[in-house]
Amino acid sequence: MKVKFLFGAMVSCLLGASVWISGALAQTDPLPSWNDGANKQAIVEFVEAVTSEGGADFVAPGERIATFDNDGTLWVEHPMYTQLAFAFDRVKALAPDHPEWKTTQPFQAVLENDMEALGKAGEKGLMQIVAATHAGMSTDEFEKTVTDWIATAKHPKFDKPYTELVYQPMLELLAYLRANDFKTFIISGGGIEFMRPWTEEIYGIPPEQVVGSSIVTEYEVVDGIPTLMRTPKIAFVDDKAGKPVGILTHIGKRPLAAFGNSDGDYQMLQYTTAGSGKRLGMFVHHDDADREYAYDRDTHFGSLNKGLDDAPKEGWHIISMKDDWKQIFPE
Amino acid sequence: MKVKFLFGAMVSCLLGASVWISGALAQTDPLPSWNDGANKQAIVEFVEAVTSEGGADFVAPGERIATFDNDGTLWVEHPMYTQLAFAFDRVKALAPDHPEWKTTQPFQAVLENDMEALGKAGEKGLMQIVAATHAGMSTDEFEKTVTDWIATAKHPKFDKPYTELVYQPMLELLAYLRANDFKTFIISGGGIEFMRPWTEEIYGIPPEQVVGSSIVTEYEVVDGIPTLMRTPKIAFVDDKAGKPVGILTHIGKRPLAAFGNSDGDYQMLQYTTAGSGKRLGMFVHHDDADREYAYDRDTHFGSLNKGLDDAPKEGWHIISMKDDWKQIFPE
Repeated sequence: MKVKFLFGAMVSCLLGASVWISGALAQTDPLPSWNDGANKQAIVEFVEAVTSEGGADFVAPGERIATFDNDGTLWVEHPMYTQLAFAFDRVKALAPDHPEWKTTQPFQAVLENDMEALGKAGEKGLMQIVAATHAGMSTDEFEKTVTDWIATAKHPKFDKPYTELVYQPMLELLAYLRANDFKTFIISGGGIEFMRPWTEEIYGIPPEQVVGSSIVTEYEVVDGIPTLMRTPKIAFVDDKAGKPVGILTHIGKRPLAAFGNSDGDYQMLQYTTAGSGKRLGMFVHHDDADREYAYDRDTHFGSLNKGLDDAPKEGWHIISMKDDWKQIFPE
Repeated sequence: MKVKFLFGAMVSCLLGASVWISGALAQTDPLPSWNDGANKQAIVEFVEAVTSEGGADFVAPGERIATFDNDGTLWVEHPMYTQLAFAFDRVKALAPDHPEWKTTQPFQAVLENDMEALGKAGEKGLMQIVAATHAGMSTDEFEKTVTDWIATAKHPKFDKPYTELVYQPMLELLAYLRANDFKTFIISGGGIEFMRPWTEEIYGIPPEQVVGSSIVTEYEVVDGIPTLMRTPKIAFVDDKAGKPVGILTHIGKRPLAAFGNSDGDYQMLQYTTAGSGKRLGMFVHHDDADREYAYDRDTHFGSLNKGLDDAPKEGWHIISMKDDWKQIFPE
């Protein structure tokens, strides 16, 4: 009897791990903040298809790449891109050293919160603001500035740190994909060095899996210290047709799945879902004015037009924040 | 007795894995092709220092980054860079479609193997050859061309495929570092898309961990097919001061260890070993005319001058292929 028990215990000990794992997968919902429905089902069916060994759509773990836009896909992008709020705060913080800004556009517009004048300054004005707030310092200095700002700045509507205004259902999706041996990458139009200081802690995505727009950085030895200096020259714009190029440059593989929320992600979804075998392309649709924001075709930040029009024929899924998500932000 | 045996078996089954692992690590030499000596010792001491939990130099697994140059560090770079041999073979293969090349430099020089005329054509001539052989096709077409060539081309001296002319001691070093939770990256002046088709199979380094020089690639939909087209415009040169920039762009972290063989790697080693805590910088010194080649200060491919001069004061190690390596190539 005792022997039999011990023998049984031995066997269960040998099988223990695998039994426990499959049990856990079978029993827990990997996407608890997602309402049951076509979109949640599409995600689970896609993951099961590409991870089922011997299945027609099986893909080896090393080839399982999923790419995510950041602004409006993983975190809030209204009333303006968070990086723009950072740039405006930097202009205000640096203003005492630049008295001329009081009467010089586009800086005067920022200091006076005059969005109309800022709009008139256009892209040229924006580039001047980027040059004044994002360049002329080392990457280490810039990282510290971003880290300090992100720890203290709060969103005007929600009065919370921006890093708390990330989408809980997307955090669950990232974790679910990684639990199934996907490598998750950010492919964002935002600045690569603006994201890297916090994406690992907030999204579990390390710096080497963050792709974004960049300025030309130069290596030089300053007072005997090897330094990477940020120049005001744009190196790469990781938006629209730039996103598949950013994917090529940093990953060198076509993703199996891509997630975005605006026409800036259109080509990323197009390139991803044009691949052979099972693919997944999804747009997060901001249709929840009560819990977040409602916007799509007509907005300065994250407009979605062609994506909405072509989603049906391209087989892309439109995620309704209102209907698909039980919860928007982490508790 | 029986019960006791079974109980013992249960315990050993519970502890089995960990006992076996630590046993294996203790008993096998991770670098069998390296002769015992200061350099092998420096590698092992470095790895033990950064992986010893609670130790002064401990580094978390996610932060353990090691970067490797490719040409002359991981594989043969003489009598010329392998990618140059590829470009020359492509010129010869494409010549029938370009009768004018018979009388046009720099192509005539390539077709006539006239290295003196080719030297006269200089960098401009080289760019013309790159444009004719590396651009004007999709990334998929280029990948196929590289894959076909690397499978058939042979090295003039060793009469072996180039992928067999990789350095066995460096393969062991790559595996040893990965077994200790390092992420291994290639940081090469060579073309990123020339390396990616074969680095995973040969070095165990996946495309997303390969950094190199690149040309501007444009995303366009050709006959309804999303395509990445290679243009003749240089996008980034991942050499010398470009290497720390390539590391920033693709990794976003300063490496703990860097391995090179020429002055093109000088800034990579400088940037790496300037970091705080325990760091490792090593140059492979080609001093083995019998088994490979002997060259350093005076060569067109992979010259090492400043690196040799400054290694002592910078604390960089010079690996002697002749004295440190039992074996050069895999059996």
